[in-house]
Amino acid sequence: MSEFSREELDEIYAFAVELGKRAGQMLRDAAQLRMDGGGGTKAQDEHVQKMNAVDLVTETDEDVEAFIKTQITQKYPSHKFVGEESYSKGASRDYLIDESPTWCVDPLDGTVNYIHLFPMFCVSIAFIHRSKPLIGIIYAPFINQFFSSCAGRGAFLNGTQQLPLIRNPIAPMPEKAPAGCVFSCEWGKDRRDIPDGNMHRKIESFVNMAAELGGRSGRGGMVHGVRSLGSATLDLAYVAMGSFDIWWEGGCWEWDVAAGVAILLEAGGLMTTANPPADEATCPIPDVKLGSRLYLAIRPAGPSPTETGRQSQERTVREVWRRVRNLDYSRPGA
Amino acid sequence: MSEFSREELDEIYAFAVELGKRAGQMLRDAAQLRMDGGGGTKAQDEHVQKMNAVDLVTETDEDVEAFIKTQITQKYPSHKFVGEESYSKGASRDYLIDESPTWCVDPLDGTVNYIHLFPMFCVSIAFIHRSKPLIGIIYAPFINQFFSSCAGRGAFLNGTQQLPLIRNPIAPMPEKAPAGCVFSCEWGKDRRDIPDGNMHRKIESFVNMAAELGGRSGRGGMVHGVRSLGSATLDLAYVAMGSFDIWWEGGCWEWDVAAGVAILLEAGGLMTTANPPADEATCPIPDVKLGSRLYLAIRPAGPSPTETGRQSQERTVREVWRRVRNLDYSRPGA
Repeated sequence: MSEFSREELDEIYAFAVELGKRAGQMLRDAAQLRMDGGGGTKAQDEHVQKMNAVDLVTETDEDVEAFIKTQITQKYPSHKFVGEESYSKGASRDYLIDESPTWCVDPLDGTVNYIHLFPMFCVSIAFIHRSKPLIGIIYAPFINQFFSSCAGRGAFLNGTQQLPLIRNPIAPMPEKAPAGCVFSCEWGKDRRDIPDGNMHRKIESFVNMAAELGGRSGRGGMVHGVRSLGSATLDLAYVAMGSFDIWWEGGCWEWDVAAGVAILLEAGGLMTTANPPADEATCPIPDVKLGSRLYLAIRPAGPSPTETGRQSQERTVREVWRRVRNLDYSRPGA
Repeated sequence: MSEFSREELDEIYAFAVELGKRAGQMLRDAAQLRMDGGGGTKAQDEHVQKMNAVDLVTETDEDVEAFIKTQITQKYPSHKFVGEESYSKGASRDYLIDESPTWCVDPLDGTVNYIHLFPMFCVSIAFIHRSKPLIGIIYAPFINQFFSSCAGRGAFLNGTQQLPLIRNPIAPMPEKAPAGCVFSCEWGKDRRDIPDGNMHRKIESFVNMAAELGGRSGRGGMVHGVRSLGSATLDLAYVAMGSFDIWWEGGCWEWDVAAGVAILLEAGGLMTTANPPADEATCPIPDVKLGSRLYLAIRPAGPSPTETGRQSQERTVREVWRRVRNLDYSRPGA
């Protein structure tokens, strides 16, 4: 497993929790400044009035990433750092996470929400070792929801409420899943109107999941609800919480999901690939690949009289695969 | 306008604010009980363990509506009361709101979210007179968001932050709206896989709004983001906040939207019908009919150098109408 001792990992966790709180506070302060139309110092006021919302948000994004990176580099100079902003400006699209201790950070997930001040935005910080996300921090400061986990220590909302929220008992996946499930999915940025392109494949999959049982030539999944928040990171946090049962997505990146994966797995969730394998009904369920850009998450599930929790999760994975299309999001090095 | 004096209306507002807080607290307490797996008295524990989530939520729903109704009837015995729960059990599907002072209440909007403990649920209380929603209260207790408005007094988040949140200045609708807009929409409960039925008409409309400009035979709207929360009431609250630019929906009921309409209009938003009139490019924009089950909401908008805020809202309404299909949700008496 890890070369880190329990004590070392706990220390890194405590550091990450504080870092997440301070980064989230920076996001909240910058949002407040926009709401006040300045309202800070005279220099800040002029600055806020001069720039448009998108520029301001880009600036906040970069400032928060720089802050997080500096803190990490000072405390753990030997650790690697992969952040959304620095990656986007880099020359390579390669997957940069290897076996060494690595921090994978999205300073602001849900950028469109943040621009419009819809509360579903957050900072996301993951600590990864030997390709396994061991620590996850997700903080949505506008609604005071702070998610955290450390391998072996449990996953929590606001430090005290263990995830999933309803634990006595943790419910198995519904018998006819995806029926009875809340299904979370995102429209994403790729809106090209190409026949059989990613957008149309996504929509076709959403409709299959939503339609009545028996509909869509037997593919209708009659999910209990379809939700789109505009933040992959918070989607995962809510799957870990047990609020969403299924999240299916293609197109996002490792910094969007790394902290969410850590929290989901620690809470007892399952994470695999969005794209159905050829032998979807019988194949072993592959572990998620962090850099694959293709994700399917199932909430924590407890046993029923006839199945283990894991069995009910795997059954749900296959029922989802049966209803969704393959998506085409490739990348080098994944 | 109203036969109520400023003083009388302010008194009703203060009463409604307190009522909303207590009702939201009841929702939160009941959610907490489920998270604790009981955790209350021994009798409560056994009760919680005996019932399934849906039964418990139905019970909470009925309890909260009974509480609100009792409080209103005691304080204002001459006012009418229209609540979701009592309506659903009534024999008539008629629209029951007339010119007299009426309270229109949804004790729990976002029921599916509440069952799954996803935070997007709320209580919704509206006070209506002469068919105009004058007071609106929306409280989402899990994320501490309390929306309130009274005609002539402004609309607020948590009592102090005036809506829309960004006011210096209030932005006009984007020049190429719906491009640049956050579009909020719901999949709803009608999932029948009928060719050209409501579900397929909704999806076709969503895809038109989402697709790239020039796509979908010129109907592509390239919205900035597509959001589905599973609560019509909170959708409207977020339009009033300025977080969502456009909400388009068919199928919900007057208690789902009454408080949201009050808050949205007081914040400066526009509300009309979801279904495009025949002369959609030129007709006067009709005021929303509360019982119509067809709604289109546009966020508060300020002037640009070439348009008033209202002009930019009306332009957006026509651009939405050009991209959406007529929905078929009829009712008697609307």
